[in-house]
Amino acid sequence: MAHELIERHHATLESALAAFAARDHWSPHAESPRAYGEPVALDTFQGTELLLDQPGTDGRVGPAPEQGGETSPYGPELRVSYPHAGDPEQLVAAARAAQPGWAQAGPLLRAAVCCEILARINKRTPEFAAAVMHTTGQAFGMALQAGGPHAQDRALEAVVCAYAEQTRLPATAEWTKPQGKRDPLRMTKEFIAVPRGVALLIGCNTFPTWNGFPGLFASLATGNPVLVKPHPRAVLPLALTVQTAREVLAEAGFNPDLVLLAAEQPGEGLAKTLALHPEVRVIDYTGSTAFGDWLEDHARQALVYTEKAGVNTIVVDSTDDYQGMLANLAFSLSLYSGQMCTTPQNLLIPRTGIATEAGPKTWDEVVADLAGALDGLLGDDARAAAILGAIVNPGVLERVERAGKGEFGELALAPRAVVSAEFPQALIRTPALVRKDARDGALPDECFGPIAFVVAVEDTAQAVELLRETVRDRGAMTAAAYTTSPLVEQAVIGACLDAGVSLSLNLTGQVYVNQTAAFSDLHGTGANPAANSAYCDAAFVASRFRVIEVRRHS
Amino acid sequence: MAHELIERHHATLESALAAFAARDHWSPHAESPRAYGEPVALDTFQGTELLLDQPGTDGRVGPAPEQGGETSPYGPELRVSYPHAGDPEQLVAAARAAQPGWAQAGPLLRAAVCCEILARINKRTPEFAAAVMHTTGQAFGMALQAGGPHAQDRALEAVVCAYAEQTRLPATAEWTKPQGKRDPLRMTKEFIAVPRGVALLIGCNTFPTWNGFPGLFASLATGNPVLVKPHPRAVLPLALTVQTAREVLAEAGFNPDLVLLAAEQPGEGLAKTLALHPEVRVIDYTGSTAFGDWLEDHARQALVYTEKAGVNTIVVDSTDDYQGMLANLAFSLSLYSGQMCTTPQNLLIPRTGIATEAGPKTWDEVVADLAGALDGLLGDDARAAAILGAIVNPGVLERVERAGKGEFGELALAPRAVVSAEFPQALIRTPALVRKDARDGALPDECFGPIAFVVAVEDTAQAVELLRETVRDRGAMTAAAYTTSPLVEQAVIGACLDAGVSLSLNLTGQVYVNQTAAFSDLHGTGANPAANSAYCDAAFVASRFRVIEVRRHS
Repeated sequence: MAHELIERHHATLESALAAFAARDHWSPHAESPRAYGEPVALDTFQGTELLLDQPGTDGRVGPAPEQGGETSPYGPELRVSYPHAGDPEQLVAAARAAQPGWAQAGPLLRAAVCCEILARINKRTPEFAAAVMHTTGQAFGMALQAGGPHAQDRALEAVVCAYAEQTRLPATAEWTKPQGKRDPLRMTKEFIAVPRGVALLIGCNTFPTWNGFPGLFASLATGNPVLVKPHPRAVLPLALTVQTAREVLAEAGFNPDLVLLAAEQPGEGLAKTLALHPEVRVIDYTGSTAFGDWLEDHARQALVYTEKAGVNTIVVDSTDDYQGMLANLAFSLSLYSGQMCTTPQNLLIPRTGIATEAGPKTWDEVVADLAGALDGLLGDDARAAAILGAIVNPGVLERVERAGKGEFGELALAPRAVVSAEFPQALIRTPALVRKDARDGALPDECFGPIAFVVAVEDTAQAVELLRETVRDRGAMTAAAYTTSPLVEQAVIGACLDAGVSLSLNLTGQVYVNQTAAFSDLHGTGANPAANSAYCDAAFVASRFRVIEVRRHS
Repeated sequence: MAHELIERHHATLESALAAFAARDHWSPHAESPRAYGEPVALDTFQGTELLLDQPGTDGRVGPAPEQGGETSPYGPELRVSYPHAGDPEQLVAAARAAQPGWAQAGPLLRAAVCCEILARINKRTPEFAAAVMHTTGQAFGMALQAGGPHAQDRALEAVVCAYAEQTRLPATAEWTKPQGKRDPLRMTKEFIAVPRGVALLIGCNTFPTWNGFPGLFASLATGNPVLVKPHPRAVLPLALTVQTAREVLAEAGFNPDLVLLAAEQPGEGLAKTLALHPEVRVIDYTGSTAFGDWLEDHARQALVYTEKAGVNTIVVDSTDDYQGMLANLAFSLSLYSGQMCTTPQNLLIPRTGIATEAGPKTWDEVVADLAGALDGLLGDDARAAAILGAIVNPGVLERVERAGKGEFGELALAPRAVVSAEFPQALIRTPALVRKDARDGALPDECFGPIAFVVAVEDTAQAVELLRETVRDRGAMTAAAYTTSPLVEQAVIGACLDAGVSLSLNLTGQVYVNQTAAFSDLHGTGANPAANSAYCDAAFVASRFRVIEVRRHS
């Protein structure tokens, strides 16, 4: 079985390793929804009981909302139930007990098993699309792509990065040291990667698979068992993941308890309990700054990888493709109702206006034209729904409604309720575009959801300085700039290098600042307060295992 | 200058990168004292004032002991003075100001400059030998080798490991994504390594260069300025390092304040102040567990790499080279009076005795024969002094004197005062060998210095279990075992992988458990409480920098 799995995935691993180094476009996972056949309807899941084989189960989470069952942002209840562990100790103990065989399997077999898990997950992409859509509110197309192949790409990236780092030192080496006229000293040395211990993934509401897979697969590929604690509103996508992983692990002769779902009943606070467990040695987390900071401060026994909130900035200086810029910005602001950690929020535009290939545009013109681009993009409800998806939770809805009332500032464009023919109950809103003036004080803080600010600044130099300050002080997952000036470009690059954020320059086509591609783009930098790590570099995996040396005379 | 430096060190960097991957014996630094010519006498330094060019200096540390001047464990006062910074803020500000040009230099030029610093340090090896000898108490031969070429090897290892990790992603990449019948999307992506910020090295008393260089050079090679805070008893070796680094940096056109000495006057507590500074983002520390734990707990704004104390264990099960084993053990226990973090302390020997090629040996015979081997090795005072060096500080002296009075248990071998003809004031002691029985309770905790325990255990199985527990609970930098049984070997390896310590098996020749070689052996594992990192793997360098991406349409 081991040999067969390695053979089956060898070519994929080789290609993925090459792609990781080359950073060109590459994926073994089809991107087009057509490749995955018929969509799966939500009712495929409704009424099911998942993961009946998990150890230590004393009851169920769900199916009813008051039992922790999920409700789709599109309206229906999911009516799925998950195992509930009577005692978190049992989960940790089961994970610990599963570790030795997996640790001994070594990096290559672990990578192959991870590839097999991903291949099975890929086959279930229509199920994941439905699960992601009905837990996050993403539109179907995005749920399928970002929740399916793109998330699988990020997972595979983590697997090969982990494989590469674990095999950086040779498994065995001969050491021969000359001793002048005497015989040389000869030693044989073995270098063995060992796991750090039980890992914990704390999932998020908006991208349970895309943001969850990198940490989950990085930990698993480095030999650590993983407890998967999903966000209470987005359990299903990670439960399907755990189900598939357990299936593959068992078939491959490993203890399936290497991957365990840690779903919680309402108000249980299971993430905190598990995060502080002395046997939990690695934590991956995506979510609020408050809980991310708490984890970093309190889970001292563990390596903690966090992705928290930030304020993403765009500097608008000048462009030679005004319509391309407006269209690109409008789509970036609209995609998934701005509910991405990478969505731009503060657009800094000189009050004197900007130069374009169609002549100068005043500040008011730029703002009006952006509002127009948003209107054009989102004017048709069906098309708007397919871009916006649904509002993920009541907190975001309340925020956008406050924005609509002008509570965040004068509106350049009011948010609009969109009605989905298929899901009339879904709460769908177009973005609010709010006017701000840098003269009036601090720039807006994070306003997660479909709310963007067009900010009048003195000039581009001030915009660059505000970008730098925002990234440094509040963190950012992305930054972008539009300029035709090489000098401005250098200034913006300098600010981004200094403050620690990656930069997209002059995006006017079908690449958006919010989107990063596995095997090519890094997601986050770990160099500013928004995240302490990035998908996926050596630093993301290199500490999840340690290397033990055994040496002896040859 | 930049081009010339890169050319000068290109071959060394290439060879070092290859050696790092191959793990065979390799070093560009001659090991024999003869290669370095005439020794330098301490009086070369006495009366000198070092680093007169450091910014922010308001006075001196030393030359008198009451001003922070050092006193040699061999007797004489060093009478060297160092700059004292009036305000730690000035050190941090000077370091920050020096960073941008160094950050922009890029990984290759930084590596070349580091190589030049090391080449100059290598030329000064006789000075370093004297400085290390008279601050640590190491014997001359060891001070020259461990403080000179071996430390330089560890530094170069960190430099090439840092270079390799910073260049893991290409500097630029083209990304082309097919779009069916439409033109492909094309992007150009740059990946730029940026430093994390000001680094702090907190040096130790016993191996100021060997333990200090890896962190110093790993931080410097990744673009971070470094504040070098030496141990108050071992300032000179790191002051010489800072002096050389500043000289080379200035010659290469960089701000010399990239490397600054942060010496302190008595009782100043400068390490704590600097460690908590918000601009200090990386800390390397070797020393006591108490302060290492404090750093890990309190310096939350920084990456903290620590090497602390542990209890090193040897399992003695059987051997086919009894005399070789005894000789190897005797030397390991004696080298530098057991004042190495890697010196074995607890020797676990079955009470039923062990099998050897010369027939079975009872527990008492093994202990008596080990005592005999120590006596033989250290019987001659001149030879003993050349192996033992001097006791590093009064704390260790007090401990060995208590051991000599039987306070730690019944003596199998009493420590003996050795008189050096050259340094009659030096305090030199042979190791105390103390009898223990595992039946009497917990094994001895760390007893830093020339004190080892021969412990009667029920059988080898208990020895293996005690090894595992000791590593897990108290940490260890090394472990060793003697056995002719493949089954015992597997059990010991299993315990070491499980508890997280590297293992030396059946060392009977000129390789000792206390010694690790750069480019081949890892020092520490980062997998047990004795250290959270290892010299030198990807994890030791990969987080000292971050990668920023800049992307645009091609």
